Amino acid sequence: MAYVSSSGEFTRDQRYIATRITADGRDGFVVEPGRYRLVVSRACPWASRAVVVRRLLGLETVLSMGIAGPTHDERSWTFDLDPGGRDPVLGIERLQEAYFARFPGYDRGITVPAIVDVRTGQVVTNDYAQITLDMSTQWRAYHRPGAPDLYPEDLRAEIDQVNRVVFADVNNGVYRCGFAGGQEAYEKAYGRLFARLDWLSERLAASRYLVGDTITEADVRLFTTLVRFDPVYHGHFKCNREKLSEMPVLWAYARDLFQTPGFGDTVDFDHIKRHYYEVHRDINPTGIVPAGPDLSGWLTPHGREALGGRPFGEGCEPGPLSETETVPVEHTPLAVAA
Amino acid sequence: MAYVSSSGEFTRDQRYIATRITADGRDGFVVEPGRYRLVVSRACPWASRAVVVRRLLGLETVLSMGIAGPTHDERSWTFDLDPGGRDPVLGIERLQEAYFARFPGYDRGITVPAIVDVRTGQVVTNDYAQITLDMSTQWRAYHRPGAPDLYPEDLRAEIDQVNRVVFADVNNGVYRCGFAGGQEAYEKAYGRLFARLDWLSERLAASRYLVGDTITEADVRLFTTLVRFDPVYHGHFKCNREKLSEMPVLWAYARDLFQTPGFGDTVDFDHIKRHYYEVHRDINPTGIVPAGPDLSGWLTPHGREALGGRPFGEGCEPGPLSETETVPVEHTPLAVAA
Repeated sequence: MAYVSSSGEFTRDQRYIATRITADGRDGFVVEPGRYRLVVSRACPWASRAVVVRRLLGLETVLSMGIAGPTHDERSWTFDLDPGGRDPVLGIERLQEAYFARFPGYDRGITVPAIVDVRTGQVVTNDYAQITLDMSTQWRAYHRPGAPDLYPEDLRAEIDQVNRVVFADVNNGVYRCGFAGGQEAYEKAYGRLFARLDWLSERLAASRYLVGDTITEADVRLFTTLVRFDPVYHGHFKCNREKLSEMPVLWAYARDLFQTPGFGDTVDFDHIKRHYYEVHRDINPTGIVPAGPDLSGWLTPHGREALGGRPFGEGCEPGPLSETETVPVEHTPLAVAA
Repeated sequence: MAYVSSSGEFTRDQRYIATRITADGRDGFVVEPGRYRLVVSRACPWASRAVVVRRLLGLETVLSMGIAGPTHDERSWTFDLDPGGRDPVLGIERLQEAYFARFPGYDRGITVPAIVDVRTGQVVTNDYAQITLDMSTQWRAYHRPGAPDLYPEDLRAEIDQVNRVVFADVNNGVYRCGFAGGQEAYEKAYGRLFARLDWLSERLAASRYLVGDTITEADVRLFTTLVRFDPVYHGHFKCNREKLSEMPVLWAYARDLFQTPGFGDTVDFDHIKRHYYEVHRDINPTGIVPAGPDLSGWLTPHGREALGGRPFGEGCEPGPLSETETVPVEHTPLAVAA
């Protein structure tokens, strides 16, 4: 495996296209309504951060979104969910085409999220960590009324610090468990993962959100890993000390976010499960996708309101999803509640 | 896979050596103290039934036991736990040798449990379903004082009936999930498994044991599957609607039995996990063994005494295990309680 070092440890290729879309256009790409298209997969935790943040901030009308299908081959994500198998705005079948349009022969990962300049069809950036921060800071002029401040200036140092350890031990930590090249590397990653989850449980026991008393970027980043924990990471990646549903604080925290507009309503459990189990044939040779787990627990009362907190700060929750971006009812437990 | 039919369904080879060891010796093998050796693996649920029954009935001093290591290659179970890698009584390295001694070129599965005639070194039987029933009915003269009646005459019809559906949907049902040749066969097996577990939960909600008010063969057969559920079947075999620990009635029932002498003290979670995850490279190519789940829950109060029931009927529980048959403390949560 290209991603496993000689010590057997999974190492994520962190070289992304660092071009930024900014308010001042310093990299040649200025924030501009209608100019760009965000390409995601609902399967991918890194892309799902951008899906959540875009919706919390109400950027849907200025930054359109293309959704790739949950599975892909070595030639990258495809638009097989769209009529004719082509993204209706970009007109391409594979996300790879947008990467090649800018960098012919691009040889790093064709990853989501990616933002494409619609006029040229060229990818601008796939730097997932920067993309969500720039949505908060650079696209501010286009935020919806009542949008939360997900990256408040006075809390950035703390948010960045939490994000760093959560990335290393949790977001990427689950992959380090699942793609470990040997027993020792796996057990080391497993130990770090659950030690960090214990640390998070302690931190969240008396605090509704990770940093401050409102939802921030830190919560978005933890959420997209937690929501995949029981359907995928627990079994497929062997992160199985307990299920999320057996860690009371984190399970209540995750349900609280899931039930908050902008989080759970962007989650497609069908895409999530099919992606991991069908694509990773090296660890799941049969490609069979588990029928479980039972998802109804996501809608049970979480009791976290008792901790106080102001989910959207001075703002308010986002309105309903547009019809074209609604997750199919058969892919989410939310329909049960409707 | 030899075990997957054209419909993709896992089919267990049910052709066992049908010779019986009986009180009247009708098959040429009479019940006789010291004559036979039971060969098991603590990893195997079918063999573990015999381990539990032998101990509940107190047959240790008349029927010795050889314990194969948890992993094996296509040439069968080996005695790699024993000094020099040989069973100290039979003097063989591989269980296969005892099969070949009786049937040269034997071409079916070399399975445990198997009972070997020590004098000839030949296997007598590997018919696991009959072995435990014969321990109850044919070895009666050698049962310990206070041994329970695990197969009482007046309840046999009901026990047989429960055993039939539990075998089809649960004992073998988990294998039908894990070794399904395709998505459809898997989902069918999964549906039957959890429907049967729901049926069992209902049956056991107001009744401490499966049949009658005492422990019977039916409980032994269900237990050896339930105890493997969270460590193996949930993840490895994709039996993941819930964990056992999330099914309150079955979880309490399983803990009740686990905490009963003769059940939990025969369980080696290390052997169980290593066997499935290291041997089944077709579904776990890396051979990495999950570090979880946390096993401490097995020792928590189960509250099933409130349902009444007489675990050993007119009898009493077995005494402590002999030192040579004690499960290593690092392979069981029981040490935590000691």
